[in-house]
Amino acid sequence: MLDEENIVDPSHPRYDSLMIRKKIADAGVKGMLADSAMIAHGRGEAYDYLLGEKTTPSAMEATKEAVARLIKAESPVISLNGNAIALAGSDFLTLASQLGCPVEINIFYRTPERMGALIGHLKLLNSKLGLDVEILGGIPDERIPGLEGPRGACQSNGIFSADTILVPLEDGDRCEALVAMGKEVLVIDLNPLSRSSRNCTVGIVDEVSRVAKNMIQMMPEKPAPTKWNNAKGLQAALDQIIDNITNKFS
Amino acid sequence: MLDEENIVDPSHPRYDSLMIRKKIADAGVKGMLADSAMIAHGRGEAYDYLLGEKTTPSAMEATKEAVARLIKAESPVISLNGNAIALAGSDFLTLASQLGCPVEINIFYRTPERMGALIGHLKLLNSKLGLDVEILGGIPDERIPGLEGPRGACQSNGIFSADTILVPLEDGDRCEALVAMGKEVLVIDLNPLSRSSRNCTVGIVDEVSRVAKNMIQMMPEKPAPTKWNNAKGLQAALDQIIDNITNKFS
Repeated sequence: MLDEENIVDPSHPRYDSLMIRKKIADAGVKGMLADSAMIAHGRGEAYDYLLGEKTTPSAMEATKEAVARLIKAESPVISLNGNAIALAGSDFLTLASQLGCPVEINIFYRTPERMGALIGHLKLLNSKLGLDVEILGGIPDERIPGLEGPRGACQSNGIFSADTILVPLEDGDRCEALVAMGKEVLVIDLNPLSRSSRNCTVGIVDEVSRVAKNMIQMMPEKPAPTKWNNAKGLQAALDQIIDNITNKFS
Repeated sequence: MLDEENIVDPSHPRYDSLMIRKKIADAGVKGMLADSAMIAHGRGEAYDYLLGEKTTPSAMEATKEAVARLIKAESPVISLNGNAIALAGSDFLTLASQLGCPVEINIFYRTPERMGALIGHLKLLNSKLGLDVEILGGIPDERIPGLEGPRGACQSNGIFSADTILVPLEDGDRCEALVAMGKEVLVIDLNPLSRSSRNCTVGIVDEVSRVAKNMIQMMPEKPAPTKWNNAKGLQAALDQIIDNITNKFS
């Protein structure tokens, strides 16, 4: 497993994971992240390591289910926070373009500086990719009922009116509040035990940039929704961890 | 489990964990930590959550074994990095005082500013506690063989000549290099699969501030060393995780 402090060496067996970490560190330097984002990333690293640092079959199924529900939705929105933008901003813009839907930035520790850095970064990526995805979140005019403070802020033409929301790396309170609004909430979270994973409609237990890439590739297949059992998918993730650590030292 | 971004509310069922996190965030603000320290802390949080956020019986046994070996040692040293100082600086000074041994600061990303902040913080704690523990690391005059860069720096009258070293939250390369020098290396690491845990003499899979407190309490008992099976202790930690996540959703 990871050592406490490490440098990125291309010959390192866990180079991918270390490069993902570097993206987070770089985004931190650019002012895109709160300190807690680093700690959250570390938690994700630990779960990803235990899961094997690859997309498990059950995570792939959950990803397909989420894609199916996004395609079927009348007004889907992709909600993005700092970590999701740092790790997979380009991919989520590509997915939004495929879906013809907006992205909306929603961050827990909202400051004008961080919002500005995130919006600016997404605009730059939009332009680099030749896309014209609508970027919401900068001028919130509605609130998610039951959420105190800035994280409850949202846009009427985005998250507030959406029927289906893809929320990578969501905070648990907000996930619950969105479900309480009657929305389908599709969560990407490496922790199968988080409140977000437990309370959402479809929980994808996988690393956010792998999921975004898988979703882009699945879009042309136009999968159809099924009757999804979220608890079953989450237990499959836990069972994968159990498989990976059973009799490791004997 | 933890949500991505959270605030500390005393009624929160995981208040202790959130307060520990706050200590890391505060130390970051004081310039005591590299960015990677936050990510490392997050990894620890995930393992601690899976372990149940309390000292397991096998961790308590490993702690006792480490205390026994520190007492028996001719020249023990407690090696401290930024996270260990932030989370349990006072407790490690108390333990060093009980053992009559020095502490030595050794950090991966060594800068004069960080070293200064850490030494200053420990001196302040020494004074607050009315202790006079020797604080080494500021003027390294030797090197740990096989380690490149600043993290190989150490003091001749500290880590270099020690026969037994307590190393909370160690990096894997350095742990291996210390073992290769023929030292007894006692590691505190919440990840039972880390290279540090695997390669050390006694691995304590537990949260560093809980371990430090347990050690202080065990010192008067003067436990005796046993023939320790490190692999068995690590598998016990993994088995605890397995117990905690089996049939969680069924």
